[in-house]
Amino acid sequence: MISLRSLGLEVDFNGAKCSLRILDQTQLPHQEKWIEIQTNEQMIEAIKSLRVRGAPLIGVAASLMIAKSALEKTSQKLLLNQALALYESRPTAVNLMICVDRMLEQIKENFDIKLIVRLAIQIFNEDVELCDKISVNGATLIKDGDQILTHCNTGGLATVGVGTALGVIRKAHEQGKNIHVYIDETRPLLQGGRLTAWELQKLKIPCTLITDSMAAQLMSLKKITKAIVGADRIAVNGDFANKIGTYSVAVNCLYHSIPFYMAAPYTTIDPKCNNGTEIPIEQRNTNEVQGFGDLIWAPKKMEVYNPSFDVTPRKLVSAWIMDSAVYRNKDVEKGAFKPRKE
Amino acid sequence: MISLRSLGLEVDFNGAKCSLRILDQTQLPHQEKWIEIQTNEQMIEAIKSLRVRGAPLIGVAASLMIAKSALEKTSQKLLLNQALALYESRPTAVNLMICVDRMLEQIKENFDIKLIVRLAIQIFNEDVELCDKISVNGATLIKDGDQILTHCNTGGLATVGVGTALGVIRKAHEQGKNIHVYIDETRPLLQGGRLTAWELQKLKIPCTLITDSMAAQLMSLKKITKAIVGADRIAVNGDFANKIGTYSVAVNCLYHSIPFYMAAPYTTIDPKCNNGTEIPIEQRNTNEVQGFGDLIWAPKKMEVYNPSFDVTPRKLVSAWIMDSAVYRNKDVEKGAFKPRKE
Repeated sequence: MISLRSLGLEVDFNGAKCSLRILDQTQLPHQEKWIEIQTNEQMIEAIKSLRVRGAPLIGVAASLMIAKSALEKTSQKLLLNQALALYESRPTAVNLMICVDRMLEQIKENFDIKLIVRLAIQIFNEDVELCDKISVNGATLIKDGDQILTHCNTGGLATVGVGTALGVIRKAHEQGKNIHVYIDETRPLLQGGRLTAWELQKLKIPCTLITDSMAAQLMSLKKITKAIVGADRIAVNGDFANKIGTYSVAVNCLYHSIPFYMAAPYTTIDPKCNNGTEIPIEQRNTNEVQGFGDLIWAPKKMEVYNPSFDVTPRKLVSAWIMDSAVYRNKDVEKGAFKPRKE
Repeated sequence: MISLRSLGLEVDFNGAKCSLRILDQTQLPHQEKWIEIQTNEQMIEAIKSLRVRGAPLIGVAASLMIAKSALEKTSQKLLLNQALALYESRPTAVNLMICVDRMLEQIKENFDIKLIVRLAIQIFNEDVELCDKISVNGATLIKDGDQILTHCNTGGLATVGVGTALGVIRKAHEQGKNIHVYIDETRPLLQGGRLTAWELQKLKIPCTLITDSMAAQLMSLKKITKAIVGADRIAVNGDFANKIGTYSVAVNCLYHSIPFYMAAPYTTIDPKCNNGTEIPIEQRNTNEVQGFGDLIWAPKKMEVYNPSFDVTPRKLVSAWIMDSAVYRNKDVEKGAFKPRKE
């Protein structure tokens, strides 16, 4: 039996059986409720509703779902269709598409269940390793005494490893650096206030929760020395999409001369995407802005704008913390993120 | 009988009786619940809990409360103590202090019930007039086709007139200008999502609700042409305190070359306050950031930072829209807000 475990995902491969469970992140931090995912439709629903979320994690989860379906003797044709449906379940995070593309290639080239399962397991293990490398590279930028702003959730819940931006923070803390984290609550779905707060408390990393609107004031008071965020898609020119609100953090960092770092694995680079304007931005339901969950505090009939992501241009980024290295503006300008000719 | 009515306050003076009612703004927009205020303690509770809120409105409401107590034959000594307790009920908005100071002066100089009541009525009527003047002055800055960002609530609910920043918007709309308003929801207490949304819908002014974190992205997409906010206290040098999040709007406006306007009556200027660093900033309860109302979505035990206001420095302000005129940076630098020698 092969068992893989992360903070938000569990999978057991046992001969011809596979059981796949996700921690329902919409119920955190108050309830740690695990859901058994049995069908492709259930996984798609879980991705769309953000029960399972985080650019790296949804790529891994979709790959494992495809492996599970393959083990259950799904025909090649149906499996291809299922994979395509997963591919289309959310539009912005490219990790999902890159992971599913790898699975699709395997299914098309050699429809061998063992190889399909092996690839999904490889994708899981790669993510763990990528997170470790990012965290080590990023921690070199963190100093004793740093007070770090982060936005959304980029930790063990967003990946199957230690996380991206939050992995960097975790590594710096483990290295004994005395740091403090300011957590943007990250409206509308509050991944900061619910998930990052929950993770940092588990890790016993000193932290303070704020509303997104408070970060600039803290910067003006010199209470923030660095900002680190994750990414959902990185264009070849260094522009990147991340959770809505990231761009405002970047603008405020520039104004206050605070370093603004992005942390993500190479799987977040979209080699087909030349710049930020080419990144599709997911628009979500109005009720996410009118309230939270079942509680609606705004007028019920009302025009709402709800983009899930925004794009931060290269010029606002101090460094791109990747698994391979820490890149600076001059590296990216020289083509560090351009696809290599094979 | 003298009856005074506004969107959020009603008062009837009938001989030796006074009935004072406030619309409980914490229950908006879903419930329009009026509360009869009978005691000074009830008014203080209503101010502290933001049932009655908005810098100009709490100044008027406190003045009317003092008049009501005077009518009820409260002794001079007790009335002075009650007025001082009102004065101290919230620390940042200076309108409260300036209005109560005027009432205190009257009580001390001539303890005549009729004069005390007359002054409170005068303060009410002055606020209506100040709002009208602000709206007329400000509307000259608004063009056909403007897409205006506003933060918090500065309308009929925050004053006893047409409002300050929202009054300007209302006037421009009444003048037939084709405008669209983007409403920052204004975490943590959501005065934008609850109150401004409710007011603009009543006024049939086209508007879109966003989270505070979305404004910058809209600016980058050139969807916002102007921003207008209110103020809770203006320093003599032009720095001003307003609802938390205002400063971030101002920084983003600068970065995107978008005019950033402040609208407020002269009663918001604190002649004793030289610059923004001298403005006391109210810190509020942690549960306001951990959730909203009874719903707590963040971990329950958690460090939280919750300043109710931030300070925007003069250099980020394109114009100060006041009742007397529209002031530019050079006017303020020359001492437009300095107290005149008598």
